[in-house]
Amino acid sequence: MNTVCKYSYEQLHALTLAVFKKAGCSESDARLATEVLLSADLRGVDSHGIARLTGYIRLWEAGRVNAQPHIRKVHETPSTAVVDGDAGLGLVVAPFAMNIAIEKAQQCGTGWVSVRNSNHFGIAGYHAMMALEHDMIGITMTNASALVAPTFSMERMLGTNPIAVAIPAGSEPAFVADMATTTAANGKLELLQRKNQDTPGGWVQDKDGKATQDAHALKSGGALLPLGSDREHGSHKGYALGSIVDIFSAVLSGASYGPWAPPFPAYVPMPEHMPGQGLGHFFGAMRIDAFREAAAFKEHMDRWIRRFREAQPVNVAQPVLIPGDPERACTEDRMKNGIPLVASVVAELEQLLHKLELPAALLQGLAAE
Amino acid sequence: MNTVCKYSYEQLHALTLAVFKKAGCSESDARLATEVLLSADLRGVDSHGIARLTGYIRLWEAGRVNAQPHIRKVHETPSTAVVDGDAGLGLVVAPFAMNIAIEKAQQCGTGWVSVRNSNHFGIAGYHAMMALEHDMIGITMTNASALVAPTFSMERMLGTNPIAVAIPAGSEPAFVADMATTTAANGKLELLQRKNQDTPGGWVQDKDGKATQDAHALKSGGALLPLGSDREHGSHKGYALGSIVDIFSAVLSGASYGPWAPPFPAYVPMPEHMPGQGLGHFFGAMRIDAFREAAAFKEHMDRWIRRFREAQPVNVAQPVLIPGDPERACTEDRMKNGIPLVASVVAELEQLLHKLELPAALLQGLAAE
Repeated sequence: MNTVCKYSYEQLHALTLAVFKKAGCSESDARLATEVLLSADLRGVDSHGIARLTGYIRLWEAGRVNAQPHIRKVHETPSTAVVDGDAGLGLVVAPFAMNIAIEKAQQCGTGWVSVRNSNHFGIAGYHAMMALEHDMIGITMTNASALVAPTFSMERMLGTNPIAVAIPAGSEPAFVADMATTTAANGKLELLQRKNQDTPGGWVQDKDGKATQDAHALKSGGALLPLGSDREHGSHKGYALGSIVDIFSAVLSGASYGPWAPPFPAYVPMPEHMPGQGLGHFFGAMRIDAFREAAAFKEHMDRWIRRFREAQPVNVAQPVLIPGDPERACTEDRMKNGIPLVASVVAELEQLLHKLELPAALLQGLAAE
Repeated sequence: MNTVCKYSYEQLHALTLAVFKKAGCSESDARLATEVLLSADLRGVDSHGIARLTGYIRLWEAGRVNAQPHIRKVHETPSTAVVDGDAGLGLVVAPFAMNIAIEKAQQCGTGWVSVRNSNHFGIAGYHAMMALEHDMIGITMTNASALVAPTFSMERMLGTNPIAVAIPAGSEPAFVADMATTTAANGKLELLQRKNQDTPGGWVQDKDGKATQDAHALKSGGALLPLGSDREHGSHKGYALGSIVDIFSAVLSGASYGPWAPPFPAYVPMPEHMPGQGLGHFFGAMRIDAFREAAAFKEHMDRWIRRFREAQPVNVAQPVLIPGDPERACTEDRMKNGIPLVASVVAELEQLLHKLELPAALLQGLAAE
């Protein structure tokens, strides 16, 4: 289960593109979905990358993803819009909506777009980073299937509801925060499950709401904990952040929210009495020079970043990081040395290629580790 | 030290108003500053209310607060503005800026205002809640004197940098989150200091960056910890959130940021080589009907709130709360039964009245507890 093979970005790109095209996506949508999906693998968010490709295809087979959506604005003001994703791949709906936010910001300083009737959109950071080349700050959120219990509850009510914020700098690399509003991302939990290891305390609770370190607790009715872990350590703040993401993404747009958010696994039945359509996302773009001359801002961002990098470390071997540093280092490494996939993911992809009658040669490892 | 007297809101209002007027504020500014300051006492954020009045006056005496500021827009686009607070009381500068955000939202859907050259603005929640009566979502942030160490650092680089988000509902009360981006607010630490009690683990570290439960660690060179407490529990997320607040509030506006944010205590010297002017804030207002008909949104917010209130509790005696519930209950109690002040705060206020040659009768308790 734990053997790992590496694959080049180009090879996984060719495979993913072929799969999305086979599922009926247009050439341009398939290319976009591939780029967004694989940005997760490049940035080290393995749970949200090609490991999910099979899951997206299952949603498409179950009729929950529309491969040829008519994505459209359904409401707008000079600085806002609501987008209906027409049940399209979130990987395609999200860049469409983020581009509207960017256009609105070009026109009137900022742009804010709430999206309904979408699906899982990959990593939030990709979409937020779209703003950077326009000298804008990008903001992205999404709701997701309920896995998280609010403070004081044993019931799963919220998704891991991430927030990403990308801020341009000058000669320093951009500041890119991309975080689940839970103590630990689900991907980290899956890693421990595969290794049959315990979690640290404060990541999960069991089905009765009791503290546990069982990495499998989620599969037996337990829940992930909001950032902060327990009330004494601020879990009400993580719960509030996850709630804000849910409301901005889904209640503002008319998507389904809270415990009614549609589940990602196609075998999980859809909730009854859903109060809206599909998953919801929220996008923001703020033009830097709507506040301050962009060059001056970037100079100060460089100073900010350098000062924080130089903050006195507890341990000289572990300097202070800027949000985005680990993901950028990972991208550099994986573009050069390949993207590692665990054997279970490789096996799933092999089956997927077989099922879709695509050449098995699309999956050819670089070298065993 | 721990005896507590209660005072009526009206009485503390009269006292605070008299003090701000004596410091040279105009009648209208003094009234506004009083209302904003005391909203903290009503909402139970005792550290940010009348307990700080003496501190504000010390800043004024030190020439760091301008009692008659010329607060003005220095830059704007249809959906954004930058405001220069002219070193005024943040308690007055903040509502000025939030009103601009609200006006911009009326015009083009949303409004976003970054503020420089300000001072401490009381509780973030007050300003965010200004949006509610306009059927808008309100967002408020501020940077603050550096007390918080980033993940892996022993150096204080960020303030407790709060985020407040207020969201209108229909027949249910509004959703109001108002949170420091640290595990514990400084006010909770001060409470334990007064009682000479230890903190829970994960709130503070000592001057060497080591875990400690000493509530006095901050006074001997230690630091507050970002929300998440340590790397394993997501402190890099709290650090990122505090950083985003710092950048939106201060780097966007031209205020001083990071370790250079001006300290609140007047006896602490100003940092050298400050990269901007004063403290920074950030305000946002989003008109609900810029996204969706307000009545429909509010109906869904009511449904959201009721569903979360009904989430299965771990302990039936402690139901799930909605952000803003505890503060609203506190306000009702304190308007009816009075606002409790500890003896040390009362003594400071007595000295303040004496120094300003104001009648001692302005401070008259309701009843000893």
